[in-house]
Amino acid sequence: MTRKNVGTLTPDLPINRFQPEKRTGLIVVLTGHGKGKTSSALGMIVRACGHGLRILMIQFMKGDFYTGEWDGINKIDCDVELIHTGMGFCGIQGNPFPRSTHREAAQKAVELARERISSGGYDLIVLDEINNALKLHLVDLDQVLELIRLKPPLMHLVLTGRDAHPEVIDLADTVSQVNEIKHAYRKGIEPQPGIDF
Amino acid sequence: MTRKNVGTLTPDLPINRFQPEKRTGLIVVLTGHGKGKTSSALGMIVRACGHGLRILMIQFMKGDFYTGEWDGINKIDCDVELIHTGMGFCGIQGNPFPRSTHREAAQKAVELARERISSGGYDLIVLDEINNALKLHLVDLDQVLELIRLKPPLMHLVLTGRDAHPEVIDLADTVSQVNEIKHAYRKGIEPQPGIDF
Repeated sequence: MTRKNVGTLTPDLPINRFQPEKRTGLIVVLTGHGKGKTSSALGMIVRACGHGLRILMIQFMKGDFYTGEWDGINKIDCDVELIHTGMGFCGIQGNPFPRSTHREAAQKAVELARERISSGGYDLIVLDEINNALKLHLVDLDQVLELIRLKPPLMHLVLTGRDAHPEVIDLADTVSQVNEIKHAYRKGIEPQPGIDF
Repeated sequence: MTRKNVGTLTPDLPINRFQPEKRTGLIVVLTGHGKGKTSSALGMIVRACGHGLRILMIQFMKGDFYTGEWDGINKIDCDVELIHTGMGFCGIQGNPFPRSTHREAAQKAVELARERISSGGYDLIVLDEINNALKLHLVDLDQVLELIRLKPPLMHLVLTGRDAHPEVIDLADTVSQVNEIKHAYRKGIEPQPGIDF
């Protein structure tokens, strides 16, 4: 890729290329019921790509509903992988699978996460919707705490999804709660591609 | 690009490729003091890229501090442009410019936004940190309301930054407030590349 998509109105401004004296692998939790948890994690992936990091996102609850990030991630020319592992949102109207099938899929996702986190081959791993998976008992608290403990010191681990468990929040360095002030669907607007999925 | 970075653990699962019956251009506001507003907007850009949308992000307050999304956006093979227009964060320690210089830069950014929003050439425009720019009187409320009014009906407009103005929130379809539960810098951890910038 040689095309440059980034420009400036202030071309003469000196740019501070800050680097921390000490590198630390952060534990970041994105929770709450508002829009902007998975998308925030995807944004960190864009940022991390800019810094040349090696990145993996494992999506726990998604898999049966097309979402733009699948093709979006494929269009990013960097060391990033996204694996969706779920059978769709458990307990949501229209989802045909029993809880046992969702749990089985989530358990495979935990196994994958354990292996990849332990491998040391990544600088950033996102466990997307793992908080929901825990809340719905598709994965167990001990499993999530183990994944966090396995994290190499310099690897960043991001856990997204509603209703993050207090023990997960306790272990995290940065926690944001995204509250819904308004959402378009409450006035009957259908989900829109590029914004909602 | 032929490399595929997206995989699945459930290859036989049928995928629902939902499309809304009615397309609507949404007004989305991402505000609050927690981490995850610009990153959420960047994530929507990844999603929108997946759907083949034409995208522009104008960054109002940034410009003097390197952030990974600049190179990250350059690595995305789609119709996306990012323009940073600011002189850095006005009023933040270490920023050498007087308010008048910040206002002048922000006024140029408003002019650019007005032209691009009116052009009809985009499906998604993000005005990054414009809420802060308004709060700091670098742009005026009337200017922001005019930008929203100029929005073509099918174009999505995303406005990020702390302390969104109530009149902007009134006009929005979807509003998320990102609250800080914890932040790593409060325990003395420096900003980390790929996560914080």
